[in-house]
Amino acid sequence: MIIKDSIHGNLELSEFEGKVVDSPDFQRLRRIKQLGVTYLVYPGAMHTRFEHSLGTMHVASRICDRIGVEGEEKEKVRLYALLHDIGHAAFSHESEKALSRYFGDHEEVGKKMMAEEELGGLLLEKYSKSEIGKLGSGIEKVIVGGDVGADRMDYLLRDAYHIGVSYGMVDVDRILHTLLLEEGELVVGEGGLEAAESLLVGRFLMFSTVYLHKTVRIGSAMLNRGILRSIEDGMDAEEFLSTDELVLEKMLGTENGGKYAKALLGRNLYKQAYSVEGALVDAEKAEEELSSGCGCEIIVDLPPVLSRPLDIKVKAGGELKGLMEISDLVRSLFLAEEKRKKTLVLCARENREEVKQAAENYSR
Amino acid sequence: MIIKDSIHGNLELSEFEGKVVDSPDFQRLRRIKQLGVTYLVYPGAMHTRFEHSLGTMHVASRICDRIGVEGEEKEKVRLYALLHDIGHAAFSHESEKALSRYFGDHEEVGKKMMAEEELGGLLLEKYSKSEIGKLGSGIEKVIVGGDVGADRMDYLLRDAYHIGVSYGMVDVDRILHTLLLEEGELVVGEGGLEAAESLLVGRFLMFSTVYLHKTVRIGSAMLNRGILRSIEDGMDAEEFLSTDELVLEKMLGTENGGKYAKALLGRNLYKQAYSVEGALVDAEKAEEELSSGCGCEIIVDLPPVLSRPLDIKVKAGGELKGLMEISDLVRSLFLAEEKRKKTLVLCARENREEVKQAAENYSR
Amino acid sequence: MIIKDSIHGNLELSEFEGKVVDSPDFQRLRRIKQLGVTYLVYPGAMHTRFEHSLGTMHVASRICDRIGVEGEEKEKVRLYALLHDIGHAAFSHESEKALSRYFGDHEEVGKKMMAEEELGGLLLEKYSKSEIGKLGSGIEKVIVGGDVGADRMDYLLRDAYHIGVSYGMVDVDRILHTLLLEEGELVVGEGGLEAAESLLVGRFLMFSTVYLHKTVRIGSAMLNRGILRSIEDGMDAEEFLSTDELVLEKMLGTENGGKYAKALLGRNLYKQAYSVEGALVDAEKAEEELSSGCGCEIIVDLPPVLSRPLDIKVKAGGELKGLMEISDLVRSLFLAEEKRKKTLVLCARENREEVKQAAENYSR
Amino acid sequence: MIIKDSIHGNLELSEFEGKVVDSPDFQRLRRIKQLGVTYLVYPGAMHTRFEHSLGTMHVASRICDRIGVEGEEKEKVRLYALLHDIGHAAFSHESEKALSRYFGDHEEVGKKMMAEEELGGLLLEKYSKSEIGKLGSGIEKVIVGGDVGADRMDYLLRDAYHIGVSYGMVDVDRILHTLLLEEGELVVGEGGLEAAESLLVGRFLMFSTVYLHKTVRIGSAMLNRGILRSIEDGMDAEEFLSTDELVLEKMLGTENGGKYAKALLGRNLYKQAYSVEGALVDAEKAEEELSSGCGCEIIVDLPPVLSRPLDIKVKAGGELKGLMEISDLVRSLFLAEEKRKKTLVLCARENREEVKQAAENYSR
Repeated sequence: MIIKDSIHGNLELSEFEGKVVDSPDFQRLRRIKQLGVTYLVYPGAMHTRFEHSLGTMHVASRICDRIGVEGEEKEKVRLYALLHDIGHAAFSHESEKALSRYFGDHEEVGKKMMAEEELGGLLLEKYSKSEIGKLGSGIEKVIVGGDVGADRMDYLLRDAYHIGVSYGMVDVDRILHTLLLEEGELVVGEGGLEAAESLLVGRFLMFSTVYLHKTVRIGSAMLNRGILRSIEDGMDAEEFLSTDELVLEKMLGTENGGKYAKALLGRNLYKQAYSVEGALVDAEKAEEELSSGCGCEIIVDLPPVLSRPLDIKVKAGGELKGLMEISDLVRSLFLAEEKRKKTLVLCARENREEVKQAAENYSR
Repeated sequence: MIIKDSIHGNLELSEFEGKVVDSPDFQRLRRIKQLGVTYLVYPGAMHTRFEHSLGTMHVASRICDRIGVEGEEKEKVRLYALLHDIGHAAFSHESEKALSRYFGDHEEVGKKMMAEEELGGLLLEKYSKSEIGKLGSGIEKVIVGGDVGADRMDYLLRDAYHIGVSYGMVDVDRILHTLLLEEGELVVGEGGLEAAESLLVGRFLMFSTVYLHKTVRIGSAMLNRGILRSIEDGMDAEEFLSTDELVLEKMLGTENGGKYAKALLGRNLYKQAYSVEGALVDAEKAEEELSSGCGCEIIVDLPPVLSRPLDIKVKAGGELKGLMEISDLVRSLFLAEEKRKKTLVLCARENREEVKQAAENYSR
Repeated sequence: MIIKDSIHGNLELSEFEGKVVDSPDFQRLRRIKQLGVTYLVYPGAMHTRFEHSLGTMHVASRICDRIGVEGEEKEKVRLYALLHDIGHAAFSHESEKALSRYFGDHEEVGKKMMAEEELGGLLLEKYSKSEIGKLGSGIEKVIVGGDVGADRMDYLLRDAYHIGVSYGMVDVDRILHTLLLEEGELVVGEGGLEAAESLLVGRFLMFSTVYLHKTVRIGSAMLNRGILRSIEDGMDAEEFLSTDELVLEKMLGTENGGKYAKALLGRNLYKQAYSVEGALVDAEKAEEELSSGCGCEIIVDLPPVLSRPLDIKVKAGGELKGLMEISDLVRSLFLAEEKRKKTLVLCARENREEVKQAAENYSR
Repeated sequence: MIIKDSIHGNLELSEFEGKVVDSPDFQRLRRIKQLGVTYLVYPGAMHTRFEHSLGTMHVASRICDRIGVEGEEKEKVRLYALLHDIGHAAFSHESEKALSRYFGDHEEVGKKMMAEEELGGLLLEKYSKSEIGKLGSGIEKVIVGGDVGADRMDYLLRDAYHIGVSYGMVDVDRILHTLLLEEGELVVGEGGLEAAESLLVGRFLMFSTVYLHKTVRIGSAMLNRGILRSIEDGMDAEEFLSTDELVLEKMLGTENGGKYAKALLGRNLYKQAYSVEGALVDAEKAEEELSSGCGCEIIVDLPPVLSRPLDIKVKAGGELKGLMEISDLVRSLFLAEEKRKKTLVLCARENREEVKQAAENYSR
């Protein structure tokens, strides 16, 4: 089975991998966008977890070839790469927080899917229950999810391609050439300092221009709010395990969630009335007080925590060192990133002025 | 208003254009894929009519600059480019045939939308009823829909980019440089023969590898059938004017249309049992006879007629000539394309052998 | 040793390959342009045989991996790929015809270099005399020089990249995936028909827009003439085995070759006064008669014969068939190409009118 | 006149611009590499000042359109862009230092060429002496040579393309969209902070991986030394105003410069024996003492000063501010860059150990 990927070209799959891809659980990923509602700002961001999962498998496979993981071990790495996002609900990260109180984060949901039903049954054709249970806890975790792992390299490339920017265009080839497996971890070898730095620069630029883009955050915040309200209105949390569009459609029918879905479908978004650097302590309280003070709905949106500092290890002079430790560039990238993380105060366009003043008073 | 397009870079919109783009009718295009179910074969084909409409506006604008169309006339060309696909229903071309008996093709639906409701009201802010009614009948038709027009150039580029092939990567720049407006038509100027030929070569390769791909055709045929059955089951044809995913979801609930929707969602596709060159005469009769003979459902799928020979005019030695007439390459491309158009006999995997034999007998 | 290539990314070389690359004979290729004087029309065409040789090695290596050639055999394929153009003189093909009467074509010169001096000595470190003598006569000839071989795939990609056109952007990945070794030849496997066709379409478009470009041909013809005259003036043919620029410089000093060198350096080129389809029989006689008739220098330039029809074999239905035989597209490409091959009558700008008339009379 | 550029596509030139391009002085730029001996490390770096000059004209033209410079003023900007590097000698920057004591830097030489001979005469067809003399002192200087000017944007893009890295792939479109002309300077407008930052990040990564690459520096240092020695040996400094290859060839014939030319042609480079952060004070003295101590030639190579901090102004909140001042990212990029600037102690491979020890002792 050969699949033509827009980033990596022709991807070859074994017969068993082909079956996994053709299972309904995996096909579902075709209808879950990689970047949630980012398309509200960058119309090209229509790519899905389906493509990304295949691409991650491909990059993971190349890492295996590089560091000498082969045979059954390599097959397991590829399988885990393919399935690492299988547990994502509609709109991926945007729904994760709202839903995690109901059935755990996407990794836990994924575990469950692999143990049950169709996908679970399929995996049992080749692996024992215990092997399936352990999938994602060995070398495959490092290769797929590590700080210089396949997941990250694929999504930076793919997101940049679909958005149409060149910043994320990480030189995967060059990074792969320097990778080593040391003490059970992927590390960047001698002479790979610049390669590792450029990965982080690409990531930083993607964060500033895409992942932390103000309008993207507003869309995400409204979606989040809509999901919460819909569940409060009685919508079954399990429904969110279906797909992006259907979830929006179902939200439309709920009493308090509907207005968010409608706003997103018609791109009728809240505006930023105020912002403050960093993550506001006691945001919930602020939101309540501001809302009741102004008599309109207000969202106090905390900056995403996705972007924790990467803990990449680099081998230099025979020793493993943290990239943060030896690269002043990398240190400053993270400082710059931190400064760009703001708490936003959002409201409907017509309340903007009033909310702005209230927020200014509140913050004093 | 500036929108970042993955193909053409930053696109600038006037305030009025921005309002059109933000209207619910236009936002709907975000949920209508440019290439229908092509994603079943090429997972990257997730791009939509939304992006394509913006891109067409951009290319149309460049054509205007080239041939000296400016001011209000250029504004109209841009507006028409933006709206040329506004009437498409879910899955664009796949549903068009099935739906055209209910409310006309996408151009007629588009006309209606521009005359009514929200979009219509918006257009009245700037244009009179009669101007709106005539939109698409002047120079804008030639610039957008012509054989070397903006629509075609944008979709070839865009489809190729998302599928990840280079064949469609038409050299728009080079073609633009040779365009002239002569006798009310866009023609390719002196010295542009190769540019025009390369456009057609790109188009030919996209047809063979994408638009006429066997599995793409199978998916499209099943979708088509499902739409017809769903309407027979009582689903309102107007429903198809919503968006791709919702239509599939609604089809799921119909008695006879449901199985097609399910098959498409789970990528459980029919197989080709037999094929014959060209368009079979009396395909409907063949389908009925084969179905009743084999006791299973059979689809006899006629080759798409989309690809009519382009009637590009080239200026050579002071005269306008048909490209077909002066280029043996172009003539042979169309002959080759015609030979690749086959009638397919499709059925479920388990009936494949039986249907194959019946079709062989039938065709004798 | 790792070399960063602009087309294929990081290329890894063995220690021995690194020594070959660092030898003066190989370094000389840095100063021999891949496309001769094509830069007179496409300024980006500054790339050299050096880069192309490395790229050919890379593609050849991938073909080996695909068809199962490994170990020492693969090493030989890589070495031959690296050295397949080592015998090219200044300006590659433009000088080949003029020089071949003195010391054979570039393959013979290459053989000699591998047998002698520095490069010969280096090869003896690893191979016996007889092995070196046979290099290029086994499987390596097929993989590197075959009609779907590494040489052709690299130069189409590379030339297109530097010229800035997308037509030559052959989908190497896709072609590689279909290659088989059958009866000692590289053939395109089942399902690879479109891949092979697209290779030929890319090649055709490169021929029409680059390799057969009128001004490129004029530059090449003048260079050719200059080389011949310089040798007649006593310049040693061996001098042409140095590098592009130096050869032009030395030609400047010869009595009758100098004016051509000067014209090329200052881009002061002849013009086309007349053309006739196909290769004129007895071109030399025509040139003489026209020149003496008009009293000025005239070049009658025959179309290049480089582009013989490729004899690609495709496996279809278990049988090997010629691509020409089964693809009407490919047949028509070659017919179209043949029609574009013209004999050009060239002269200085000021004699254009007079020569045109003389040529018209002559051709009657 | 239309020229196909590999980066920007088709470039249109006026008749007068075409004449300038076809003049011998401008054609000379075809034989002066943009990146000197960088090809010793990145074989794709064969592009020339010729292509870069055309590309700079194109970007300058787009800046004019953006900020509203038109008519004759725009023509002058384009002309200056075309000619801004006309005074470069062989190997551009590598020879500039050595030659500047003889006839000034490349701007002074350029001025002279525009006042004299063929190029000067040509310019007089359209401009007065005084206009020519002032070329480069008005708005054209800002647009072409400014910190966010056309020169810089073109070379970052072009160098990255030919080297095959994506880091330099600056989003020119996005930067252009934010440019303003304020107080006679090009500044980045509101909302353009990220665009400006990404320009500097691209530049930083090009510096670390290309312009400051150790082996590139070694090649440049040897070339520099060779040029100096050749002039001391009596070679006429004016000779260096011819072209790269010819200069190397002529150097070959000088007594003390020849060995450097030979080393560069055969890629037989010095090695780094020692390095120290920053620019060593009194490098000349160190070089002398180390050389006489070790009894072999040693080069103490100071880090290039090319990369002075860019003084980009950004408009934020109605005020012009220095980018350095408001962006911690930019500040840290320059700190990081400074730390990467090292003084290198270079010598032949066989003396490496001895020189290393001597340098270690010396630096204590």
